[in-house]
Amino acid sequence: MEKDIQKNKTVPLNIPVLANGDYNADVAEALPRVSALHRWIARKLLDMLGDPPFTFVLWNGEEIGSSAAFRIARVRIHDNEALHQLLLNPALHFGDLYSVGRVDVDGDLVGFLEAAYRASASATKFHKLKTIQTHLLNRPRQNHLADSRANIHHHYDIGNEFYELWLDREAMQYTCAYFPSPDMTIEEAQRAKMDHVCRKLRLKPGDRVVEAGCGWGGLARHMARHYGVTVSSYNISHQQILYARERARAEGLENKVEYVEDDYRNISGGFDVFVSVGMLEHVGRDNYAVLAEVIHRCLTPNGRGLIHSIGRNRPELMNAWIEKRIFPGAYPPSLREMMDIFEPHEFSVLDVENLRLHYAKTLERWLARFDQNEAMIETMYDRAFVRAWRLYLAGSIAAFTTGSLQLFQVVFTRGTNNDLPWSRAHLYHEE
Amino acid sequence: MEKDIQKNKTVPLNIPVLANGDYNADVAEALPRVSALHRWIARKLLDMLGDPPFTFVLWNGEEIGSSAAFRIARVRIHDNEALHQLLLNPALHFGDLYSVGRVDVDGDLVGFLEAAYRASASATKFHKLKTIQTHLLNRPRQNHLADSRANIHHHYDIGNEFYELWLDREAMQYTCAYFPSPDMTIEEAQRAKMDHVCRKLRLKPGDRVVEAGCGWGGLARHMARHYGVTVSSYNISHQQILYARERARAEGLENKVEYVEDDYRNISGGFDVFVSVGMLEHVGRDNYAVLAEVIHRCLTPNGRGLIHSIGRNRPELMNAWIEKRIFPGAYPPSLREMMDIFEPHEFSVLDVENLRLHYAKTLERWLARFDQNEAMIETMYDRAFVRAWRLYLAGSIAAFTTGSLQLFQVVFTRGTNNDLPWSRAHLYHEE
Repeated sequence: MEKDIQKNKTVPLNIPVLANGDYNADVAEALPRVSALHRWIARKLLDMLGDPPFTFVLWNGEEIGSSAAFRIARVRIHDNEALHQLLLNPALHFGDLYSVGRVDVDGDLVGFLEAAYRASASATKFHKLKTIQTHLLNRPRQNHLADSRANIHHHYDIGNEFYELWLDREAMQYTCAYFPSPDMTIEEAQRAKMDHVCRKLRLKPGDRVVEAGCGWGGLARHMARHYGVTVSSYNISHQQILYARERARAEGLENKVEYVEDDYRNISGGFDVFVSVGMLEHVGRDNYAVLAEVIHRCLTPNGRGLIHSIGRNRPELMNAWIEKRIFPGAYPPSLREMMDIFEPHEFSVLDVENLRLHYAKTLERWLARFDQNEAMIETMYDRAFVRAWRLYLAGSIAAFTTGSLQLFQVVFTRGTNNDLPWSRAHLYHEE
Repeated sequence: MEKDIQKNKTVPLNIPVLANGDYNADVAEALPRVSALHRWIARKLLDMLGDPPFTFVLWNGEEIGSSAAFRIARVRIHDNEALHQLLLNPALHFGDLYSVGRVDVDGDLVGFLEAAYRASASATKFHKLKTIQTHLLNRPRQNHLADSRANIHHHYDIGNEFYELWLDREAMQYTCAYFPSPDMTIEEAQRAKMDHVCRKLRLKPGDRVVEAGCGWGGLARHMARHYGVTVSSYNISHQQILYARERARAEGLENKVEYVEDDYRNISGGFDVFVSVGMLEHVGRDNYAVLAEVIHRCLTPNGRGLIHSIGRNRPELMNAWIEKRIFPGAYPPSLREMMDIFEPHEFSVLDVENLRLHYAKTLERWLARFDQNEAMIETMYDRAFVRAWRLYLAGSIAAFTTGSLQLFQVVFTRGTNNDLPWSRAHLYHEE
């Protein structure tokens, strides 16, 4: 029996999934019989997850796990090799197997992923395994200048049309929105987020703003239009820059907003305000000192800054599948790690706000729109792409609702700046 | 000449100051003549401070320093040994020499201290010297259980009557107040601080609150009276506990507030809220893991916590004189260091607010009242005590206005708690 498993690694796989992601009954018949060892592996996986509220259904229909317990979902494993890969590196392989349909989830995908996050957080065995795997096998990619371009191209240059199908329709904000009223639409919440950022930065007409990582440029245009500032926005995604420039021209803002296709490390000039929303996750820990130097170099004596980033309650590597397949080089820092940006030049942290549940809600809005446009997206790409992105969006919701990920907005200034407001009430005058 | 200096260290000092702090002209006449070496030392000190906007006046009336420059103050050095001690360890000895009147400051004391802070922050020579001195010579005292009692007794058991002369008259808050309107009285601002803390903690009737380090118990009484909660407050200062209990009885709150004369490390029971205002500075870095354990043990699953503490923009030891003479064992942490409390049990930081300039204003209010009661305080203690406390209050103002010290309020909860408000607007409804 063990010999069979060894052999399976070298012989071509029988995958009971058709190219369109449907189950292939013909191939399924040719799979090895479910054995005692297969059952043992499935139970081992559940055991490593601390007996979670879901079961595994093997390729012969046999269900493994406590059926008496409340069951959120059934995880269908369609072939024996998929089972082995899950044991080897569940965090990485689950995503790949799910994407191609070799693993399926019957039931609520988000609920299942939340249960998996909660279980893995409390299960020490799994945690140890995960720690070893993440640190030995899944070092995030480096973000040297050339690598950064490749990593960012991987994700952001898929096509603007794709993101237009499910992001907010006004400002194309691919970052956490702000829901002071939780029933806001995604458009309202992204506008509220941009205003929240602008108020935190106390923008006033004539301020010179530099933005590191501008996405499709929505925040820069919002600042220029509503706060009378000029903005230099840096981004290394070619498609995003083209889109941003076109929009600025169309809206008559081309004299107020300059989109620079260049790396944040090449920012030059003096600015009253430094802002970066959703870039730090891609910067990588090794580059925080360089980022600190850039901010120190460009910020005026009474300048203000804001960094908005996904984060952690304590240092941990990104989920291996997300880092490998979705966001190469991504690393969400803990507040402790973010201090590598603020301490070297004695920047003073004025305000930290954790918007964790706002990101879960943002992702729910995105997923709902994604699902509405699923058929269209499948024609643009393929079934595996749709399944991978659904898993990524659903898994991100789960990561934020279970507390695995945080969203920090950090406001800072130079340590010697005494031009500070006496309260944060000005952030809330309109709410 | 150098031999004379060596000798001076072993022979009894000629100190030109009388017991009441006045200048003693008789002794002054017996002092050594001002020499080239004395002038060199005075210039060296100014040089180490990066040519600050003040001068030294030696015991013969001779002024050293650039008189052409804008001059905030003249620092009078009344004897040669005082000059030598300043060179040896300015941060430690200035305070001692000033207290006994061997060094004086003509001009605005706060302004002079601000200039000294600013100069020493930017002067690399002084900075290097200070770093070596603080790390080699001035390790803060340990805070084991017995030491903590001695350290706290040193400062807080001077006598309640003393603090009543210059703290706010309602709640005896010996911590940073909150001035959403900068013209508030100290009583208004301390009330605003307590309400700000209570709102951040989202207190609701019936909540069980535990307080680590309660001073004279004002916050606990405020919470019980205005928010309908019960409070267990821990403190190891015997005099403060007696005062707090008496006030609670007088105000009919003895069934809502329990003052426990014990160390925070012995907190037991389960609580909805953990709060600590102005204790962390005395806890010491080595004990953050124990504090974290205490919070983890006592906080309910959806419990909230707030820590209010003096801090730093980057790690640095307390001013040597303050640590030795005023606050033994004190250490204001950087945000990075505070993460030692939050990370081990995956507490989630929800909100950080830096109230730095609020502490400068608080201290200004305290110093004004202290000065009004100077004569009274001198009869209770002595001249050196008055001078030492004035220097401590004035120096603390300077430390906050120049950005050497920060004031952090950190709100946190367990990483798995999703019972979170959608915005911080509820903090500002009444402002």
